[in-house]
Amino acid sequence: MSIIYLDNNATTRVDEKVAETMMPYFCENYGNPSSIYDLAHKANTAVRKSRETIKDFLGAKDAKEIIFTSCGSESANMAIKGTLELAPHKKHIITTKVEHPCVLNLYKDLEKKGYKADYIGVDSNGDLDVNELLSKVDKDTAIVSVMYANNETGAIFPVEEIAQKVKEINPDTKIFVDAVQAAGKIPINVKDTKIDFMGISAHKFHGPKGIGALYIKSGTMVSPLIVGGHQEKGKRAGTENVPYIVGMARAAELATENMEDELTRVKKLRDTLEEGILTKIKNARLNSTAKNRVPNTTNIGFLYIEGELILLHLNDEGICASSGSACTSGSLEPSHVLRAMGVPFTSLHGSIRFSLSRYTTENEIIQVIQTLPHIINKLAKISPFQKELGEILGC
Amino acid sequence: MSIIYLDNNATTRVDEKVAETMMPYFCENYGNPSSIYDLAHKANTAVRKSRETIKDFLGAKDAKEIIFTSCGSESANMAIKGTLELAPHKKHIITTKVEHPCVLNLYKDLEKKGYKADYIGVDSNGDLDVNELLSKVDKDTAIVSVMYANNETGAIFPVEEIAQKVKEINPDTKIFVDAVQAAGKIPINVKDTKIDFMGISAHKFHGPKGIGALYIKSGTMVSPLIVGGHQEKGKRAGTENVPYIVGMARAAELATENMEDELTRVKKLRDTLEEGILTKIKNARLNSTAKNRVPNTTNIGFLYIEGELILLHLNDEGICASSGSACTSGSLEPSHVLRAMGVPFTSLHGSIRFSLSRYTTENEIIQVIQTLPHIINKLAKISPFQKELGEILGC
Repeated sequence: MSIIYLDNNATTRVDEKVAETMMPYFCENYGNPSSIYDLAHKANTAVRKSRETIKDFLGAKDAKEIIFTSCGSESANMAIKGTLELAPHKKHIITTKVEHPCVLNLYKDLEKKGYKADYIGVDSNGDLDVNELLSKVDKDTAIVSVMYANNETGAIFPVEEIAQKVKEINPDTKIFVDAVQAAGKIPINVKDTKIDFMGISAHKFHGPKGIGALYIKSGTMVSPLIVGGHQEKGKRAGTENVPYIVGMARAAELATENMEDELTRVKKLRDTLEEGILTKIKNARLNSTAKNRVPNTTNIGFLYIEGELILLHLNDEGICASSGSACTSGSLEPSHVLRAMGVPFTSLHGSIRFSLSRYTTENEIIQVIQTLPHIINKLAKISPFQKELGEILGC
Repeated sequence: MSIIYLDNNATTRVDEKVAETMMPYFCENYGNPSSIYDLAHKANTAVRKSRETIKDFLGAKDAKEIIFTSCGSESANMAIKGTLELAPHKKHIITTKVEHPCVLNLYKDLEKKGYKADYIGVDSNGDLDVNELLSKVDKDTAIVSVMYANNETGAIFPVEEIAQKVKEINPDTKIFVDAVQAAGKIPINVKDTKIDFMGISAHKFHGPKGIGALYIKSGTMVSPLIVGGHQEKGKRAGTENVPYIVGMARAAELATENMEDELTRVKKLRDTLEEGILTKIKNARLNSTAKNRVPNTTNIGFLYIEGELILLHLNDEGICASSGSACTSGSLEPSHVLRAMGVPFTSLHGSIRFSLSRYTTENEIIQVIQTLPHIINKLAKISPFQKELGEILGC
């Protein structure tokens, strides 16, 4: 059975061109970039060029502003902990209620260590309350951490505006933007913003799992998370992951090449999927109609149906989707994002995220639109909420 | 020109079998191990099996004792910082003068934060002064960090004995062993030891750069370095690097298969290299004749000759070697390891490390023995120490 993969916000298929680019760096150009012989120079040059590519991908000014990390979570931990370590007297931190666990759980951890954290809410569409955020910034605020695009709803937050306005209130407050779900889906241009840190992860844009980057604005100081060798200008120790660094750079180039496709064809497929499901399935509700959304993501609630069961039935048909962040899978808690949006209990447990990619075809979307109503009908019959469902479905 | 790669302590060529094993996890079995569909189960199962393999590789009791990290430096930072965070009142830490920068620089950092650090010395052979180490342990000692094998000399430290005796003095003191240079070169069996943490890195045993593991003894607590998702039982957030995890496990299997070759054939080649150089080059001195050495490493000083020049001339002949840790390359400081051993100034700057691997052939070693005297002769002629060299070389 061929697979219809609609969980690209969890992870993506590595592009064959990315895999090809990485290959020579395993068994041929395997030198340690820090060594002094020719074999090492090849690796060193590859890392240097890749840094330039990632600089361009994020629209940064200087390749020196880019350091390579092992993932988005490391980037977030490094920016946040590395900022707080340099300002030990400042005990106030701000983020949103809908961040990825790598920020939220870190903030909860920091609260236990004496930090006062403010978690900013979103409205029922998933849009951030920017005014609430700004009202919390004061002279003690060490860092504001805001995601660029939400992994579950796709809602895009006005990070450039937030950075600008936060700095107007307190120029010393640092801004970390988790751009993991934005990079590769929408154009990013960090150069002319007040953003201090931006984290990305290659496996969300058809690069490999286990490599990320952190943009650190020129002049912004940060304490390293992984102390040791001189790599990454002393900001991140450890022998450079040359194959993956080269792979991430290639993935970034391809994402840029495919950006137009993402913003038009993929978006249209996403809209077709939404419309098809909402038309054909009467108990389906769109969870987010945020003003700005990344073009590949939709999150739909199915009233009175259990989400995990929908996913298992979709899996039987070869369709991959999710009920929230993969990083919170396994917990039985409903999505913290949808709860923050006030999604009612009736559809909270039956919400499914579909996230498309440049590999998604029209035929696949048609197939999902055809398949899903049967699954929902089947599950409606075994739902404990027969009366409520009957009223909606009119049967 | 074919390359003679004798810098395997810096990094190794990825075994073709490792590369093959990783391939399907890039473009085919690319699921996020945390997701619930079949595609993800494949990734999840692969990670689970790999954890078992690494458990066996280190001779651990339980696969739950193994967590995957992005490198040896991360493993060291996690074990050390993660221990100190849980014992904030304990301010004494011990390590050796010859550790890898990932431990040494971290300790220097910790000193700035109020920790009292003791750095234990080695003798002229590179053997650790275990009695000095034990004499420093007291009730305030939070952690003792000792490498298994030194990256520059290959000297093996009695880590099992150290762990045992440290615990007799203070059972609460935690023991971290940096086994990055031991794993794959000598058999490791952590099960019946008192070692709490052991770090390894795949790229030192023909696996890829950018993946490591940390053994955490069952019952030993540690605070995570990268906070976030539930991965690695909440001890290390970030989507699992499935291809590299699978690759590291395969590399571990191959290292185990090749262990006998390492301990016999590779050791013999190393001994042949040493003997050949010492016989043919009159100003050559063996820097370490430590009682126990890993079988692949030798470190030789060439009196009154500049090491960097030797390396550049070796490079011209396609021979890759190094003058110290790749992680300290670029600095003009002579090796901290050789300085700790009291290697005299006369050969300190002219010391070269040769580190072999299972790919090293007898022909390669013969070629190095033939080539090196010409290089040393050439450089002797331009050495500013003509008088001293004349006396040694008898010309």
